[in-house]
Amino acid sequence: MTSTTYASRVFPLETMDVPGGTETVLRGGRHLFPLLHRAFAGVRRIGVLGWGPQGRAQALNLRDSLTGTDIRVTVGLRPGSPSATDARSHGFTEEDGTLGDWLAVAADSDLVILLIADAALAAHHEEIFAALKSGAAIGLSHGFLLGHLRETGGEFPAGHPVIAVCPKGMGDSVRRLYQQGAEVNGAGINSSYAVHADPDGRAVDLALGWSVALGSPYTFRTTLESEYLSDIVGERAILLGAVHGIVESLYTRYRLDGDDETTAYERSCENITGPIARTISRSGLRAVREALDSAGQDVFDRVYTATYGPAREIVAEIYDEVADGTELRSVILAERRLGAREMSEIGGSPMWAVGGRVRARRGERELSVDPFTAGVFVATMLAQIDEFAERGHPWSEIVNESVIEAVDSLLPYMHARDVAYMVDNCSRTARLGARRWGPRFQAAYEQIAYPAAEQPADTALLEAFVAHPAHEALSAASKLRPSVDISVS
Amino acid sequence: MTSTTYASRVFPLETMDVPGGTETVLRGGRHLFPLLHRAFAGVRRIGVLGWGPQGRAQALNLRDSLTGTDIRVTVGLRPGSPSATDARSHGFTEEDGTLGDWLAVAADSDLVILLIADAALAAHHEEIFAALKSGAAIGLSHGFLLGHLRETGGEFPAGHPVIAVCPKGMGDSVRRLYQQGAEVNGAGINSSYAVHADPDGRAVDLALGWSVALGSPYTFRTTLESEYLSDIVGERAILLGAVHGIVESLYTRYRLDGDDETTAYERSCENITGPIARTISRSGLRAVREALDSAGQDVFDRVYTATYGPAREIVAEIYDEVADGTELRSVILAERRLGAREMSEIGGSPMWAVGGRVRARRGERELSVDPFTAGVFVATMLAQIDEFAERGHPWSEIVNESVIEAVDSLLPYMHARDVAYMVDNCSRTARLGARRWGPRFQAAYEQIAYPAAEQPADTALLEAFVAHPAHEALSAASKLRPSVDISVS
Repeated sequence: MTSTTYASRVFPLETMDVPGGTETVLRGGRHLFPLLHRAFAGVRRIGVLGWGPQGRAQALNLRDSLTGTDIRVTVGLRPGSPSATDARSHGFTEEDGTLGDWLAVAADSDLVILLIADAALAAHHEEIFAALKSGAAIGLSHGFLLGHLRETGGEFPAGHPVIAVCPKGMGDSVRRLYQQGAEVNGAGINSSYAVHADPDGRAVDLALGWSVALGSPYTFRTTLESEYLSDIVGERAILLGAVHGIVESLYTRYRLDGDDETTAYERSCENITGPIARTISRSGLRAVREALDSAGQDVFDRVYTATYGPAREIVAEIYDEVADGTELRSVILAERRLGAREMSEIGGSPMWAVGGRVRARRGERELSVDPFTAGVFVATMLAQIDEFAERGHPWSEIVNESVIEAVDSLLPYMHARDVAYMVDNCSRTARLGARRWGPRFQAAYEQIAYPAAEQPADTALLEAFVAHPAHEALSAASKLRPSVDISVS
Repeated sequence: MTSTTYASRVFPLETMDVPGGTETVLRGGRHLFPLLHRAFAGVRRIGVLGWGPQGRAQALNLRDSLTGTDIRVTVGLRPGSPSATDARSHGFTEEDGTLGDWLAVAADSDLVILLIADAALAAHHEEIFAALKSGAAIGLSHGFLLGHLRETGGEFPAGHPVIAVCPKGMGDSVRRLYQQGAEVNGAGINSSYAVHADPDGRAVDLALGWSVALGSPYTFRTTLESEYLSDIVGERAILLGAVHGIVESLYTRYRLDGDDETTAYERSCENITGPIARTISRSGLRAVREALDSAGQDVFDRVYTATYGPAREIVAEIYDEVADGTELRSVILAERRLGAREMSEIGGSPMWAVGGRVRARRGERELSVDPFTAGVFVATMLAQIDEFAERGHPWSEIVNESVIEAVDSLLPYMHARDVAYMVDNCSRTARLGARRWGPRFQAAYEQIAYPAAEQPADTALLEAFVAHPAHEALSAASKLRPSVDISVS
């Protein structure tokens, strides 16, 4: 699906072994900052449109990394944007020309990074394109606009490089780990990059420079389409939607089994965001099963067997609908419908009140991995990995979108704040997707998977898990990044 | 949206009062059978393509009703169809020319009634259209093909009347109640009819004749588009999808509250398919609340208040997606994906094992309406009614698709067989829709509605329920049909 081999005139590249071949990767780090002026040749002004979590993080990281060069980073906002105050408090001001109206900033920049919300991008991309200087590069961190243009018959304007650098984590982590990277070299959020249009041959190094300047520990190549599909599907599956469905279904199951509220929460939500995420992050997927005693492994095996099939069915359905454009149409319809009325929040369900109590008693004791929960979660993760592999995604993208982004970024965030907070506060497109698909996982698991969890384990399925090429790919990706816990305030 | 006034050259028509005006209705009955030859003027051969529940019921009813005329009813099947044996056992045979290859039957008929599965219709409608005699009428019982043609840029062939007669119930009921109609005049399933193309002025009476011959107690007018939307949305909402989601969420809630399995089942699923459906069928929607004592009414009012909003959000989302074509695309994608592999069944979830025990002890005692369950169910029903009314559907269609088809046809069927049986055995399009949307109702009710059920009732909302124009429309529709219990084997 995508050529993962490339060359750079500026940065030293490495080769990473992946199942079935190799991928070229750029290992990042502050030692590369002196090369940035070469990667950004021809770029004097970078305009970051938007001051959401990604906009803020990227503008701050870029400005810090480009200190000492004559490249200026300017933030562009919609007229009357409530974000102006926060941007000013971070040193982006009208007075020194580093804060302005988004169209004016777009007109003045050599690289325009579009980090406004999807709905705004859908509504205003034509005005922004029309404002661009001749030959200015268009930068995206998300494939949404590609999907939107395809659905609506639009196009990127000719003659402009179109590149993407997509950090595989939330904006807050992109900034915070960059700051940690001042002490621990290489701390940061991995990114993928894509070159969608390259009229003058500059695009690869411009994208790589952008990624290095963001602090990406490693940068791997993909296509805008591949990024879009893995991102939109991932947030509906193991990154958010399925997590919500899983924890609701497990919490209910444990309560029906007789557990009190706190125990049920610790066995379900707390277990996933805590010990399971940590184990995978430090030691990989197999370690989750290996850490269990033999009775626990028996439970894991049966539950994994029962869950994998239903999980795979749903991930395949999500993928088909995202690839077809159907899912995007539903997002557009929802935006229209919700124009008048905000989405209802799920944080009011009884489960989340329990979460507060559980977080208060953390540290009293070490929570061990619950084998039933682990079987469900790992099976769902493998279902997504297998679906992406079948569809031809690069291995680096598969493991980033299916494992690393979850266990290093999203789940720790949910551990600090809880899943409901995430579901009610992430991007609109992700919220809509989680609402559509979370309940599908919940219902399928309650009605089909859990009733089958008493059945004997499928040894072939478990052998495929143990021997899975993903472990090697994950391990290779992990070597290229120090294990740094995100400090979440 | 639709003109509900029309004239017939053959049948006597009546006027029914509905909120905001009147609708023309045709009251059916066997006394009208002597007029059929006039309605079917120009039609010597009727070809029924398909021998599923609708195909079988319609072919049998038509043949019985047209006994003594020279109009022949022939069944057309795909080559190698496994249904041939059953068709022959019902007296449709190759020997007497009443059974044949579907394209040959299409080529030979003056009215071709397309009752094959949606997927087959999508794949083969062009061949069927190409086979038609000049001027032959095309008959549908479902608006699916209209949706499909719009999505794919296709068209009905010019020069052919295109009519629809859509019984508002399952095929088995269409046949069984027709047979009961031999004793009780007017027993049957109501139908809507639509004229999509009328090149020679015959279409209205052809459609009305078809409906009378099916045994429809009353026939009301709609458009193919309106029928399609209300039907596809309805099966995802109160007719099936929402019912499944409701019973799963209530069963779990009652179990978490401490009810044993049998009590939880009786308060949820059994309550809806039994006393609630029966009360609405005999006495209307308000009677459900009126039958409760004052403590029960307080529960009903709070639960209705908490459920209506979330229910309305989801019905609106379903409607947008069906109207936009998005839902149809997902059906097509699912057909493609499931081509190799059957849909998993939901009948294995623990709830349904309990159903068997509960059915075995029926008759031991009279089950009374559970106020919590009633509030949830009635609120969901009203949410659909209000959404259809807002979108401009005729009142007869609103009450048929939101109330009558549920309480007179589907819920009694589920009472005999259980909801899971229905979800696993109805039409493919309905099954897919129930799987997509049932979990949405379940999750929204568990996470948003039930946590809010302790809040005070919204008196304005309850007043709107009590004063709702739907009660009048439902009552008018009920007057036109004797209350006959479906005998389900």
